Amino acid sequence: MSAPAPLRFDAAVPAVVLLDQTRLPTAEVERVCADVPALVTAIQQLAVRGAPLLGIAGGYGVALAAARGDDVPAAAQALATARPTAVNLATGVARVLAAWADGGRTAEAALVAADALAADEAQASAGMAEHGLTLVPEGARILTHCNTGALAVGGTGSAFAVALAAHRAGRLAHLWVDETRPLLQGSRLTAYEARRHGIPHSVLPDSAAAALMASGQVDLVITGADRVAADGAVANKVGTYSLAVLAAHHSVPFVVVAPRTTVDLGTADGAGIPVEQRAAEEVTHHAGTAVAPPGTAAFNPAFDVTPPDLVTALVTEVGVVRPVNRNGLARVMET
Amino acid sequence: MSAPAPLRFDAAVPAVVLLDQTRLPTAEVERVCADVPALVTAIQQLAVRGAPLLGIAGGYGVALAAARGDDVPAAAQALATARPTAVNLATGVARVLAAWADGGRTAEAALVAADALAADEAQASAGMAEHGLTLVPEGARILTHCNTGALAVGGTGSAFAVALAAHRAGRLAHLWVDETRPLLQGSRLTAYEARRHGIPHSVLPDSAAAALMASGQVDLVITGADRVAADGAVANKVGTYSLAVLAAHHSVPFVVVAPRTTVDLGTADGAGIPVEQRAAEEVTHHAGTAVAPPGTAAFNPAFDVTPPDLVTALVTEVGVVRPVNRNGLARVMET
Repeated sequence: MSAPAPLRFDAAVPAVVLLDQTRLPTAEVERVCADVPALVTAIQQLAVRGAPLLGIAGGYGVALAAARGDDVPAAAQALATARPTAVNLATGVARVLAAWADGGRTAEAALVAADALAADEAQASAGMAEHGLTLVPEGARILTHCNTGALAVGGTGSAFAVALAAHRAGRLAHLWVDETRPLLQGSRLTAYEARRHGIPHSVLPDSAAAALMASGQVDLVITGADRVAADGAVANKVGTYSLAVLAAHHSVPFVVVAPRTTVDLGTADGAGIPVEQRAAEEVTHHAGTAVAPPGTAAFNPAFDVTPPDLVTALVTEVGVVRPVNRNGLARVMET
Repeated sequence: MSAPAPLRFDAAVPAVVLLDQTRLPTAEVERVCADVPALVTAIQQLAVRGAPLLGIAGGYGVALAAARGDDVPAAAQALATARPTAVNLATGVARVLAAWADGGRTAEAALVAADALAADEAQASAGMAEHGLTLVPEGARILTHCNTGALAVGGTGSAFAVALAAHRAGRLAHLWVDETRPLLQGSRLTAYEARRHGIPHSVLPDSAAAALMASGQVDLVITGADRVAADGAVANKVGTYSLAVLAAHHSVPFVVVAPRTTVDLGTADGAGIPVEQRAAEEVTHHAGTAVAPPGTAAFNPAFDVTPPDLVTALVTEVGVVRPVNRNGLARVMET
């Protein structure tokens, strides 16, 4: 099956063209962002999402501003702050902005840098898949959360890339997919990607993961990360911390897969990671229909933070950090 | 605010008339079940639900069969097996059937017995509220799951009755309401009941409960039960076991509130409780719209089972069992 690319740069328009993830899985619709404000809006509405892919989107956004002849530093600022938690967005933007500034402030320099960032993320994905595969037992039943495939990360993904590699190696018995409330990235996006790759899978309510673990049907939990602090604390889609506590209770390994662009040594620990609070309507409404009485308030953090002692291993493109701590993380960042 | 009763018997039709819980909170619609097959269907579709209220519904179903001149034992059999997990359904049906058999097989004998069952459950609710209140600290921030108010239990409920009593005593700072996927009984029903009683509340995705506990904003978790085994294992809405593990990890008391009709001394332990598996569409579709690719499989147990060592206390209408074990439970059943 072929489908639109999650993200591409169309120099002819010019525009950043996204596969609109808010429309999946019912429709594969391309969303053309012909200027930076349109791209910022698309990022905020989660038409494009996933920490590494946000970095790539931010990088191409800078290239778009350069191609249009906009105020590139101002555009970079708007892009870098479109969402607060994933460090990749700010670093991707900064990388392409620096290349543009160093490269004679030409549109070409920015585009070359954005392409290089995308290529690096794709290569990182392959590295994560290779290293992650070493942690997957034969006949593994893997539980994952949110979406960490090509729709979130360059290449074939982060955590999803490991599951895909295990599937291709004949080592994956089943992929359990948390539906991932409130925006259902598991049901909508991971199930869509699993289906495209022929991976045997089932979705489940996030709250059923505990019962599934208790029944002995989960050998490994793998998730991605939106930001990893210097001590190894992991910010990721809300529900990840819940899974980490449950995995520890059931003695199931809990593995985080993330490229080094997601690691932020400038943030000392989990308490330093800003967590985005999102609108109540994501919880109280579904597709415009109320599922709670009018005006109901909601606690709706986009992310939660898992302390490093609950993370069995952190898989990066250059190797596995285990145990997850400040020293191990510093070492992998120096590789 | 007045609203239709969750359940009433209309002798003039005759019919069991339900407030259709599948339509809440957007519409308050009465569903008239004029024969037992219609009531069985309503039970299976969760138009009426909650272990104690299912018992009452089953009891009135027997009264309906008697009033219609149907084959009462056959009707009782169909009602008792409409759903497998809540023991109340079978025991409520058995109680009214026995009264009918002992009372000259008259419609009146069945109706008197069903009314008595409903009155007993209302009285039990008041007792649970009274005993449960002793476990609620001043300024409590209580997290609850699913729906355990008047829509689930006679009177003002089980766990919800405790929260309501705490609110009326000026002791409740906030009620956190798990949305309770897949059928959103928290958002749809508990938020609806909290709003009607003026209780300050917020809904949250089930998967955000861990982060909420980690932030120090939960003083107490209280849930209901669909069946309590003789060893104190608690079957309740899926996600309850998840909360129990998370509460233990965060040193938050985890309290179960249930009338003695929910206790089944005939089931030795949690492994003996049948857990209903429900259709994948409850997870993969919302209001008829697919939220996952066509044909996606789902793990969708209606309930999970919490072992007694994770239950801080069990509140019944005659007192609090603490610690929760076989002896404590046997004692409260003899009271």
